[in-house]
Amino acid sequence: MIKNDLFLKALKGEIVDRPPVWMMRQAGRYLPEFMEIKAKYDFFTRCQTPELASEITVQPIRRYGMDAAILFCDILVIPQAMNIEVEMRPDVGPWLPNPIRSQKDLDRVVVPDIHQSLGYVMEAIKMTKEKLNDEIPLIGFAGSPWTILCYCVQGQGSKNFDKAKQFCFTQPVAAHELLQKITDTTIAYLKEKVIAGVDAVQVFDSWGGMLSPVDYGEFSWQYIQQIIDALKDHAPVIAFGKGCWFALDSMSKSGASALGIDWTCSAKNARSLTGGKITLQGNFDPTRLFSPPKEIKKQVKQMIDAFGKDRYIVNLGHGILPNIPTENAAAFIEAVKEYKQEQ
Amino acid sequence: MIKNDLFLKALKGEIVDRPPVWMMRQAGRYLPEFMEIKAKYDFFTRCQTPELASEITVQPIRRYGMDAAILFCDILVIPQAMNIEVEMRPDVGPWLPNPIRSQKDLDRVVVPDIHQSLGYVMEAIKMTKEKLNDEIPLIGFAGSPWTILCYCVQGQGSKNFDKAKQFCFTQPVAAHELLQKITDTTIAYLKEKVIAGVDAVQVFDSWGGMLSPVDYGEFSWQYIQQIIDALKDHAPVIAFGKGCWFALDSMSKSGASALGIDWTCSAKNARSLTGGKITLQGNFDPTRLFSPPKEIKKQVKQMIDAFGKDRYIVNLGHGILPNIPTENAAAFIEAVKEYKQEQ
Repeated sequence: MIKNDLFLKALKGEIVDRPPVWMMRQAGRYLPEFMEIKAKYDFFTRCQTPELASEITVQPIRRYGMDAAILFCDILVIPQAMNIEVEMRPDVGPWLPNPIRSQKDLDRVVVPDIHQSLGYVMEAIKMTKEKLNDEIPLIGFAGSPWTILCYCVQGQGSKNFDKAKQFCFTQPVAAHELLQKITDTTIAYLKEKVIAGVDAVQVFDSWGGMLSPVDYGEFSWQYIQQIIDALKDHAPVIAFGKGCWFALDSMSKSGASALGIDWTCSAKNARSLTGGKITLQGNFDPTRLFSPPKEIKKQVKQMIDAFGKDRYIVNLGHGILPNIPTENAAAFIEAVKEYKQEQ
Repeated sequence: MIKNDLFLKALKGEIVDRPPVWMMRQAGRYLPEFMEIKAKYDFFTRCQTPELASEITVQPIRRYGMDAAILFCDILVIPQAMNIEVEMRPDVGPWLPNPIRSQKDLDRVVVPDIHQSLGYVMEAIKMTKEKLNDEIPLIGFAGSPWTILCYCVQGQGSKNFDKAKQFCFTQPVAAHELLQKITDTTIAYLKEKVIAGVDAVQVFDSWGGMLSPVDYGEFSWQYIQQIIDALKDHAPVIAFGKGCWFALDSMSKSGASALGIDWTCSAKNARSLTGGKITLQGNFDPTRLFSPPKEIKKQVKQMIDAFGKDRYIVNLGHGILPNIPTENAAAFIEAVKEYKQEQ
């Protein structure tokens, strides 16, 4: 039994005294203790060494006491395991030296054996669960197949992922083959994570909002739906699509336990677009954490009032930025813990 | 009198046989004839030389026969005129060597005399009007104050304009002073453009969609509203906010003649969010122009059917990409000209 089960209660839609809180990318570069580890070990060493990944995962919990931990890892371990080379270049970010641009490129892409290629993630989960000692739940995550395709085809981050979209629009058969391979891998991967001990899983569709609603249905949503269908009886699933307000209606009927909301969608719009019944997670603008702590606390209070304390998980609308002062992150968490609904 | 007045009719909400069509960035790098000029003259020489700017403006009209021309220029001529240095670096894009980060930086920013600093734009308008010979209308444009601030503070393009948002959230007084100076300059600039001969103006809020609805109201929309208020009795105003679906309701009540829609907002959502009465412009995904011409034509037909032929201007949902084949752009325009509503 998990001692602080606020997060799991919110996922079930149960009544709570205050909403739970965690932050996307809470184990990350805004933390001095993370930067110490980063100075010593490169990106994939940190991901692939269970001692390091579990230590990084619990760092923010020690400092701030969030209501859920999320395993330190990266969405690009999936293409890496699928025989697509991924580097993390210091000033560039993800760099895939051999991007997928044709059916021929696709032939070398495999659906891997998860134990063999991603066993280190399962080890990190077990080690993290020991460190957490059943105090709070642990979240595992994966990128959406579309978001993973974006990197596999583009070869790096991009403002509009034009090459990824060009690939889908000119070679749709190959695109769907790649998406299905990623989906199959992701389902097997997330199922193993649940077996290893994660209490919930989140699917990040960071780039779904670059597609039109019709293209989103074709190239992104149907694969996320497959993942939800395959996982929902094993663990609660949170689906987060940045910029995907137009798909919230479909998402709310998907079997997901909660939906992530970005900051361009007001609480009122989010509740209305999702039918008012599903648990929502979000949606503080990550750059709003630059505001003075007092202002942050005021805005967090307003945000909880707007979403309502139930069926709600306080979070940012995307990952925390590297240059946020630690006291500002503290103000965000404290504001939730101090939350009292006005009578 | 303009011979082809489809575009002006659509702006007035009049009944038309088919909707008018133009493309954002239609005078640009996808055109071989543009690339020839680009090879000889640098960016600001092209903007600042009326012979070149007017030639570039009419190039796509000669090739494709759109229903409106848009003056070749750049939104960053405004900060340049306000004493903020702007360079266009070949592989970087806009580069502002001395970004605005403090009240002190702001002191050197001026509201310029438009004739003195931007007279070349008015010359380009007059020259273009002569070349167009009253065949089709000419559109003039400006960036929204928020979008201009993004570049002035960030100093270059960005995925999240974190420095620009940090400036607004930590130094709101200075931010509003800068926004007001940009607004005053923009109003004077657009009024002069109308006097010089443009038949409509468009305000581009390319980065409004990075703000939460509340912050959008504070840092972007109120300044666009000032521009609309000042211009609407002089020329029809089109307001385009990329990613600003959440503000379409306010926009529809603003006095603008038309609203630009991006491709993440379906025709149905756009009509519903704007009350169904205002003219809408958009919203083909620019990367969808990578599709084969036959597929483009099919999707354009579907798009017109979805928006309806009246109170509608066919356009892309953002600027055309540099690497779109010219025959694909042709298919887009032809599909509109061939449009017949099913009886």
